[in-house]
Amino acid sequence: MMTVSSAGSSKDRVLIFDTTLRDGEQCPGATMTLEEKLAVAELLDTMGVDIIEAGFPIASNGDFEAVSLIAKQVKNATVAGLARAISADIARAGDAVREAARPRIHTFVSTSPIHLAHQMRKTEEEVLEIITGTVTQARNLVDDIEWSAMDATRTSIEYLCRCVEAAIKAGATTINLPDTVGYATPDEYRAMFRAVRERVPNADKAVFSAHCHNDLGLAVANSLAALEGGARQIECTLNGIGERAGNAALEEVVMAIRTRGDVLPYETRIETTMLTRASKLAAAATSFPVQYNKAIVGRNAFAHESGIHQDGMLKHAQTYEIMTPESVGVSKTNLVMGKHSGRAAFRNKLDELGYKLSDNQFQDAFERFKDLADRKKHVYDEDIEALVDQNIATAHDRIKLVSLSVVAGTRGPQRATMKLQIDDRIVTEEQEGNGPVDATFNAIKALVPHEAVLELYQVHAVTEGTDAQAEVSVRLSADGRSVTSRAADPDTLVASAQAYLGALNKLMSRGARLHAQYAAE
Amino acid sequence: MMTVSSAGSSKDRVLIFDTTLRDGEQCPGATMTLEEKLAVAELLDTMGVDIIEAGFPIASNGDFEAVSLIAKQVKNATVAGLARAISADIARAGDAVREAARPRIHTFVSTSPIHLAHQMRKTEEEVLEIITGTVTQARNLVDDIEWSAMDATRTSIEYLCRCVEAAIKAGATTINLPDTVGYATPDEYRAMFRAVRERVPNADKAVFSAHCHNDLGLAVANSLAALEGGARQIECTLNGIGERAGNAALEEVVMAIRTRGDVLPYETRIETTMLTRASKLAAAATSFPVQYNKAIVGRNAFAHESGIHQDGMLKHAQTYEIMTPESVGVSKTNLVMGKHSGRAAFRNKLDELGYKLSDNQFQDAFERFKDLADRKKHVYDEDIEALVDQNIATAHDRIKLVSLSVVAGTRGPQRATMKLQIDDRIVTEEQEGNGPVDATFNAIKALVPHEAVLELYQVHAVTEGTDAQAEVSVRLSADGRSVTSRAADPDTLVASAQAYLGALNKLMSRGARLHAQYAAE
Repeated sequence: MMTVSSAGSSKDRVLIFDTTLRDGEQCPGATMTLEEKLAVAELLDTMGVDIIEAGFPIASNGDFEAVSLIAKQVKNATVAGLARAISADIARAGDAVREAARPRIHTFVSTSPIHLAHQMRKTEEEVLEIITGTVTQARNLVDDIEWSAMDATRTSIEYLCRCVEAAIKAGATTINLPDTVGYATPDEYRAMFRAVRERVPNADKAVFSAHCHNDLGLAVANSLAALEGGARQIECTLNGIGERAGNAALEEVVMAIRTRGDVLPYETRIETTMLTRASKLAAAATSFPVQYNKAIVGRNAFAHESGIHQDGMLKHAQTYEIMTPESVGVSKTNLVMGKHSGRAAFRNKLDELGYKLSDNQFQDAFERFKDLADRKKHVYDEDIEALVDQNIATAHDRIKLVSLSVVAGTRGPQRATMKLQIDDRIVTEEQEGNGPVDATFNAIKALVPHEAVLELYQVHAVTEGTDAQAEVSVRLSADGRSVTSRAADPDTLVASAQAYLGALNKLMSRGARLHAQYAAE
Repeated sequence: MMTVSSAGSSKDRVLIFDTTLRDGEQCPGATMTLEEKLAVAELLDTMGVDIIEAGFPIASNGDFEAVSLIAKQVKNATVAGLARAISADIARAGDAVREAARPRIHTFVSTSPIHLAHQMRKTEEEVLEIITGTVTQARNLVDDIEWSAMDATRTSIEYLCRCVEAAIKAGATTINLPDTVGYATPDEYRAMFRAVRERVPNADKAVFSAHCHNDLGLAVANSLAALEGGARQIECTLNGIGERAGNAALEEVVMAIRTRGDVLPYETRIETTMLTRASKLAAAATSFPVQYNKAIVGRNAFAHESGIHQDGMLKHAQTYEIMTPESVGVSKTNLVMGKHSGRAAFRNKLDELGYKLSDNQFQDAFERFKDLADRKKHVYDEDIEALVDQNIATAHDRIKLVSLSVVAGTRGPQRATMKLQIDDRIVTEEQEGNGPVDATFNAIKALVPHEAVLELYQVHAVTEGTDAQAEVSVRLSADGRSVTSRAADPDTLVASAQAYLGALNKLMSRGARLHAQYAAE
């Protein structure tokens, strides 16, 4: 196999292939805007991810544009675009990654009998010809080709070996053997890689890759077992998001390798102190909250003691800690800024938090910060992150909230009066509702009539204390698309209105039919 | 080892030991009320859990009472109480489980060099004597004794074998070898069980047990590997909650064994169609939300297709499904009830959802249901679950919300006027705040002065649509205790007030110092 070990280390290098922007983003409700995708890609690149799978270029013009822009923006990582075993897909993926410093086309085809019979309706020989044809086509566009045997874990080793051999012969440089349905156990997955690498005569010409789903809770264990079987690339996502039960979590894979270097003699290039920040950015961009006890990045992941009230259980930290919170970038929440903090201090803080904003973005963010500092006693790092992330998300909105006033409580009905700017027009409406949020949303519906369905409504406090900003996530679906938007404000109702409008803006930017015959004033 | 295989099956029985009420409940913020613990225990018993670890009786009078009541209530499962290797702990645990049909004392001591040096400050010989003494004491109280070697995975095999032999000799019937710090890999954990069971001469007299933490994302894989090493009991929790990154998730362990029976020749007694209901009850009781892509019980766990928009990817369900949603009790959300539904229909629905309420609880729940049906067009199963769960939680509250009225919006300040009943007194207050939630909470603080800190504020919609009930979770901490409470109402602000008051009620029932010199009217 190709060598990927780094100079001066006795450990084998493992390539980290992040698919947050593809497998992660395609799961129901995790849709990201272009700006959010660019922000995630930039952080992944800075963090040391080896390959960023940026999207599925044939899927839509939006996907194509995102992959193209990420290809141009990313400096270090390889940028991959996904393509089915279809000529048009491969051409489109090639176009999208063309300007990357290190472009990759990732093409896949099903190899399992159940997929061949029900999905492909092809014979084994026909699929072999497809592999040769599509990999050859891709290799004529770029040098770095990944080929995936979809549903590899339910394919016979004999046929899988023939497919892999054909793909490498046609020019594939990475061979991915995914556990598409999350079915494998670690022993099986390790054995599959061993068998394929032993039996395929040209196996040494490609890097083997693991791609695991977590349906049975085994994605990380399977990924690590694949390394023992000879894989040297792991496909994973931030927070483990992805189809169904998600993919192997990047942060768990990376920290398992790092923490257990004694029995897992591998290394990655990931700067682990950025894992917490990356997890937060992914959670904000997808509006998928992270479970409190999520390994590595959950809010309880390093909460060792406070739950145990027994006097006798006081203990030394090192007796329970296998990794330090600092190693994954967890720091104590600091009181950082207030109403007297100026432009320079704010810019320093943004640098420290890893943001790189344009001048316009900085100016918008600074104004929102001053407004927040006027209203909130303590402004924490998390408050600033929420504010900037929202700022990035809403830069191109057509509908903006001008003002909102709500009367609510146990003695209904609740009433909301709202003023919106839609493009250049100002419109106003008053509506009643079943609760203040319902009244607020009814006012929006009266001003921007639409058929979208509210699938999710969620609020959490950004920091502690009763004057914390509320961060609201709203998921809307229309015409089979599902978008999620979030907004933060000390007033839950204002944040709710902004999140709902943000989701409408996302739907409009994707061309969903909103009946935008703006209500008369 | 003792045989635990069931009659008529070629597969080995694996005992499921649930510690949601002990390891789960002791993690920061997951505190449950007595009523919630009883509801969880009843569901675990009905679902077929073999052993329910109900708490840590010495920890507080509340823990003792919970374990005692669960011991009396549970019909089928063994009920375990935890005890350190201290005489008073063991006596208290014995008292707590005394009335159980199948009582167990679970006692533990650290065995690793790092724990012996830093936490215990004992020699290996001293710890061996402690094991013999404490297990003997426990065995004189009940017949079923579990002994755990805390931090077993960082203990030398030689010393671990001596400890296990001593524990079994003194009467331990179950030997638990926990991966306390979530450090082990599957191969190591399997090998540890194999080595101990081979080397310890009386190993066949005990059932071996796995207890895994998920710090590196390997808890489920480690638990399954332990079975291959000879363990026949797995300790786990609903939703995988627990200290730090939590424990192995019960639902993942059970479904992995069930789905991969071909390579994991084991079986459990769990009725898997109750897993979804159990997950929801645990999430509600602890107010710990479940990540969308959580395996088995996340809301996306069976969302196979909607995220993929490509025409060519239409496929047969069976090509991607390794288990059916129905097998874990996921059903389509049904429109079930409305304002015309009567008492009998409501009682049937509660039966269907698995609730068993007392007459008083039923009457309260029915009144709340009628109130909700008046305000909400469609009442779904989830709405009823939220309502009943809240009903169970608030039965014994001293502080009750009488009325609330709020004025809010972008043109602050926001104002809340609140009327509370505290025991037999009615008190009223008006307060301003930074947002309507802050104003509401300020009114509560004025009426019930207290030092508790708001650690978490979270809202989600119970069902889809803008008139959905908002379910609010509030976590307060005072005097080193942390409690979470939740409440559901179509009005977010009313739900917020009720959740905050619920948390105050929980703190009061635990004796936290609230300065309840009720404000003058």
